[in-house]
Amino acid sequence: EEEITPEEVKTFLHQFFFYIFFSKDSLDYDNSENQLFLEEERRMSHMGFRCLEIRRWVICGLIGFLTGLIACMIDIAVEKLAGYKYFAVKQNIEKYTELGGLSISLILWAVLNSAFVMFGAIAVAFVEPIAAGSGIPQIKCFLNGVKIPRVVRLKTLVIKVFGVICSVAGGLAVGKEGPMIHSGAVMAAGVSQGRSTSLKKDFKIFEYFRRDTEKRDFVSAGAAAGVSAAFGAPVGGVLFSLEEGASFWNQLLTWRIFFASMVSTFTLNFFLSIYHGKPGELSSPGLINFGRFDSDVSSHPILTEKHATIILSFFLSSILTQKRHWLLRFSHAVLCLRYIHRPCLQVMEAMLVAAVTATVSFAMIYFSNDCQPLGQDKAEEYPLQLFCADGEYNSMATAFFNTPERSVRSLFHNPPGTYNPVTLGVFTLAYFFLAVWTYGLTVSAGVFIPSLLIGAAWGRLFGILLSFIIWADPGKYALIGAAAQLGGIVRMTLSLTVIMIEATGNVTYGFPIMLVLMTAKIVGDYFIEGLYDIHIKLQSVPFLHWDAPPTSHWLTAREVMSSPVTCFNRVEKVGRIVDVLSNTSTIHNGFPVVAHTSENDEHISVLIKSKTCLASSRLSQRKLQLKDFRDAYPRFPPIQSIHVSQDERECMMDLTEFMNPTPYTVPQETSLPRVFKLFRALGLRHLVVVDNENRVVGLVTRKDLARYHVGKDGLEELHLAQT
Amino acid sequence: EEEITPEEVKTFLHQFFFYIFFSKDSLDYDNSENQLFLEEERRMSHMGFRCLEIRRWVICGLIGFLTGLIACMIDIAVEKLAGYKYFAVKQNIEKYTELGGLSISLILWAVLNSAFVMFGAIAVAFVEPIAAGSGIPQIKCFLNGVKIPRVVRLKTLVIKVFGVICSVAGGLAVGKEGPMIHSGAVMAAGVSQGRSTSLKKDFKIFEYFRRDTEKRDFVSAGAAAGVSAAFGAPVGGVLFSLEEGASFWNQLLTWRIFFASMVSTFTLNFFLSIYHGKPGELSSPGLINFGRFDSDVSSHPILTEKHATIILSFFLSSILTQKRHWLLRFSHAVLCLRYIHRPCLQVMEAMLVAAVTATVSFAMIYFSNDCQPLGQDKAEEYPLQLFCADGEYNSMATAFFNTPERSVRSLFHNPPGTYNPVTLGVFTLAYFFLAVWTYGLTVSAGVFIPSLLIGAAWGRLFGILLSFIIWADPGKYALIGAAAQLGGIVRMTLSLTVIMIEATGNVTYGFPIMLVLMTAKIVGDYFIEGLYDIHIKLQSVPFLHWDAPPTSHWLTAREVMSSPVTCFNRVEKVGRIVDVLSNTSTIHNGFPVVAHTSENDEHISVLIKSKTCLASSRLSQRKLQLKDFRDAYPRFPPIQSIHVSQDERECMMDLTEFMNPTPYTVPQETSLPRVFKLFRALGLRHLVVVDNENRVVGLVTRKDLARYHVGKDGLEELHLAQT
Repeated sequence: EEEITPEEVKTFLHQFFFYIFFSKDSLDYDNSENQLFLEEERRMSHMGFRCLEIRRWVICGLIGFLTGLIACMIDIAVEKLAGYKYFAVKQNIEKYTELGGLSISLILWAVLNSAFVMFGAIAVAFVEPIAAGSGIPQIKCFLNGVKIPRVVRLKTLVIKVFGVICSVAGGLAVGKEGPMIHSGAVMAAGVSQGRSTSLKKDFKIFEYFRRDTEKRDFVSAGAAAGVSAAFGAPVGGVLFSLEEGASFWNQLLTWRIFFASMVSTFTLNFFLSIYHGKPGELSSPGLINFGRFDSDVSSHPILTEKHATIILSFFLSSILTQKRHWLLRFSHAVLCLRYIHRPCLQVMEAMLVAAVTATVSFAMIYFSNDCQPLGQDKAEEYPLQLFCADGEYNSMATAFFNTPERSVRSLFHNPPGTYNPVTLGVFTLAYFFLAVWTYGLTVSAGVFIPSLLIGAAWGRLFGILLSFIIWADPGKYALIGAAAQLGGIVRMTLSLTVIMIEATGNVTYGFPIMLVLMTAKIVGDYFIEGLYDIHIKLQSVPFLHWDAPPTSHWLTAREVMSSPVTCFNRVEKVGRIVDVLSNTSTIHNGFPVVAHTSENDEHISVLIKSKTCLASSRLSQRKLQLKDFRDAYPRFPPIQSIHVSQDERECMMDLTEFMNPTPYTVPQETSLPRVFKLFRALGLRHLVVVDNENRVVGLVTRKDLARYHVGKDGLEELHLAQT
Repeated sequence: EEEITPEEVKTFLHQFFFYIFFSKDSLDYDNSENQLFLEEERRMSHMGFRCLEIRRWVICGLIGFLTGLIACMIDIAVEKLAGYKYFAVKQNIEKYTELGGLSISLILWAVLNSAFVMFGAIAVAFVEPIAAGSGIPQIKCFLNGVKIPRVVRLKTLVIKVFGVICSVAGGLAVGKEGPMIHSGAVMAAGVSQGRSTSLKKDFKIFEYFRRDTEKRDFVSAGAAAGVSAAFGAPVGGVLFSLEEGASFWNQLLTWRIFFASMVSTFTLNFFLSIYHGKPGELSSPGLINFGRFDSDVSSHPILTEKHATIILSFFLSSILTQKRHWLLRFSHAVLCLRYIHRPCLQVMEAMLVAAVTATVSFAMIYFSNDCQPLGQDKAEEYPLQLFCADGEYNSMATAFFNTPERSVRSLFHNPPGTYNPVTLGVFTLAYFFLAVWTYGLTVSAGVFIPSLLIGAAWGRLFGILLSFIIWADPGKYALIGAAAQLGGIVRMTLSLTVIMIEATGNVTYGFPIMLVLMTAKIVGDYFIEGLYDIHIKLQSVPFLHWDAPPTSHWLTAREVMSSPVTCFNRVEKVGRIVDVLSNTSTIHNGFPVVAHTSENDEHISVLIKSKTCLASSRLSQRKLQLKDFRDAYPRFPPIQSIHVSQDERECMMDLTEFMNPTPYTVPQETSLPRVFKLFRALGLRHLVVVDNENRVVGLVTRKDLARYHVGKDGLEELHLAQT
């Protein structure tokens, strides 16, 4: 008979418990109040809790500060790189305008763009594919409780930041705001854990926060800090986090999130003001700045606003009907690109898009004859004369020779008459198709700025057309159009309104913006879901919405639950546990419950008296502390990697210390909305269904609830991914 | 044997069930999913739910509109009345300044003040005492789930509005903002129910919303609309509602609340702009308007802000130490006045305070020699020359001859040099003591404006003193001081920051304001609770905070729960039910559970077969529908008023249709924080504690949870009122 050393048993049990308690496809936002946890909490003094609270504040401050720094870094890097690029291309164009070799300029531009994009796409495609896109759907899922691997790792952050700098500098129709939100979230996940598994560096601090509940809270703060840095909208950031992530509102938590947001905005601001050589001037916060909208006290602009609102709201209803097709195209683009799986091809496609973007831009500049007089204030950083007369510049070139942020601002604030309607119309169309194609590329990039730009362009166009009939300030229509377009795509409501209000810096625009966003959401929802929701649905993740479908009252827990459930006894044979866990079909049914029905009591006492290696396992359990679980959080070895010998299989394990003795349960007659509410409000991972005698009859998991959905003909069941 | 007609039985049962299901001291924010409810929900089509949703939006729009209208009415009434008063007094003073009979002016002023206040105090003291004060603590309790009688009735609203007009016009040191929040909430409760019980008018609409869950949501919207109208801060309003009331965050609900807030601000704005003769000018929202704070692009004011923040934050730590005593005084004032119970005396006291306020004001104007040159822009509406030279006016008179809102604005925006430091210091002290005395009077009045005014005065004073050392804009210090003072008194955090940002109309002030509010809260909490919390504690209501006390992990449901629990069977003898319900000690232990343990099944079937009048009760139950419950909601006859004959006592009642077959339960080993979380997140009224065999062993009610509290020496048990 082979001898097992206590050390071996201990190691085995370690790995084993990690598997049992942590391996899962969804996050647990309800603290598992097992014996170890309770013992620790009970040992802690009032002072101890106060220290924890202070630590939470410090972490939130750090998150805000670091997120602000990253935003600052991205902003400066993009500005520098794009500046060099535009300068080189402009020089080249000016050189060849006279000589007549403009195709060389085109090639230079296309090559520069492709080169930038290539670096970004290579990093994303070969190193960390999860860094593609804006990352907002992933963060939404994380906050919702769906576990998506590698979303909040340091490597993802590095690739994301590098990727977004490359793709924005490469002139793609993308923004850097979405990725900021993801970056903030990763930063938060890293800082709050006090270590980096990628760097193999453990600072041995903040160990208390190594669990899903706490991590989620910090990630909320990080996402808020990201929004705050991106748009200079700290309140908007808080509301974004709440709208996308929260279910249980907690005053103190929200206040901390707000703190992180504020610190982030002001860090960004402070460093940018130093960079721009005006230290201490904090009046233009955020990566994107809509500029100052004055609420003119003269009466007509306000009336115009009213007009804008009313007319646009109706106008939108028709425009958004079209948007249905656009959105379908968006989602098709996503679908299409899912079939390009080879990283090489993905990089090639990204480069192709970059080159095409340059070509389209060039063609539009070349063929447009929209010359505008050069302003005194040098608002344009790279005025391109091209074929225009001296003292004039090509206005189409302004739109393409600028980071999209600047273009948006120009559309909002340039005085009436700056843009030719035809130029604007062609630009809108061209940029729109570029944005659709770009979306879904394997680059890190956001969709906020292209949406704002497209919206601002057609809004301004609408304003110009309207101004032929009545007096209208096209800049305000641009703002309304931008809000409508963005709202129609992302379908955010409260948070987007507040972000727009904060970015415009004027509360009085709130009402029209709110009405437009409401209209956009209602009209949009009638046709198709929002972009992020489409994204989430395509990934077939069990995403829980706010409420159960309204017509689901006739469904009960009995019909919804997974059953039969494999139960363990308090003291269980190791062999059985390994068999159950290795059986993938059981795993899929949810996490096996450690049942403690009283009928088993005799059974257990018999088992305890049996010969097995209970003693040694007890020895090892004595040493197994919460700290061990924390050190391994959140990555665990798969059960298959643990070798279990025949003797070990005969060992008995006492699960008492590790089980949650008071899980939430519901009777089997409970209606679906009631189950849903409990599940959602408490952020559960699974809910035990019991019969009248408190016997376990089933288990409700996230997937069981997420598959019900309101379709055209009432309640529908979705097919969710099995992994 | 006496014959019972089916009609009689029906009537009896009606009253009876109302008593069982609705009489309680706390509100139920968890839908009781009994058979009647489920049947209705299941009958409803998808279209039906959509119509409900539309109705909810319509109601929210109405709430916003009506709240805005009320705010507008209050504002205009106060302005008119105060205007007449000041005009009369000013005329009188000017007349007697030369003649030398200024004591007549004093008497005139005191009499006018007392007269106004008398009307207000009589209405409050004799007609509806609950309308006293700001009503914010009451609304906080309502949203928390504590039932306080008559808080959301129409009569309360009428008295509140009348009272606040009288007390503000009567020159008391009070504001009209707090009562606006209460008014909005009452409006919401009324509109959403589609009827007024006071007016005996039922519009037969919105009947679906006649239950606690729905009503609470609308009251949240009403409170938000009130804040929004008062401060022109729609986002702040939403956050106020969430901070004070919400526990479960729901995106759609929040969006509706925001809609109500927006509509309210813009209704108020629109009508006020018409009143002021500039229709369509919507740029100065809210009852109180801080005026436009520009974020000057020149660098020094921003540096000043920074200074202000840093210096004030430290300064505050010392100032707020003093505030402890002030707050103690506040609470003593409350305590003191609780002993003046006779309405006559209460009215007399209010009149006395009004007269004293006039006297103090007069004395301060009389003895101050602070003459300022009369501005060109006529910023002062009632400039009082008094003993000043021609072309000058008495600046102390400005402070007292204005509604407090205007005074706050002057302190924020008047150019440096407008105020003499000594004048300001004396004013601060005098106004402070007046405010303390006034708080707790039997008049409807808010504490926001006096706090802001005191804070602005000492903030400005501080700024002036500072400007002797470095350059400083005293107006900005006034703003910071106002935020600090208000924050120290009400201890709101996120919502107050956002309200202040929205009222100043400038996002860049957010950071300093947040820091100051944080400091104020931390320093304040160290000494004493916030004013509203003191108020709530004095009333001994079972108010649930956000989290369970951190050190309460060692308490379990077993120790916390009330037991034994009186249980009913599914089919129960009427006599027993009446006895149990009439027994006040049982009632106090919470609502008796309708147990449905399976052991009783045989027992029940035996009972069904027995001779009793089950048939007739069944007949009546057939007619008892959810509608009947709704019609009676929320006022029910006490059980004592129901006459039960001996025969009726022998009847059997089938409770199946009315009980909630799937109540939330917890095992008795559950820790207090876990019970608390479940209770708070779902807004429960009671939670059933069961043993391993699912037998009811106890009941956790709101009171059981609310009594634990963190004191100086760890966990403490509070004594809560028994009624």
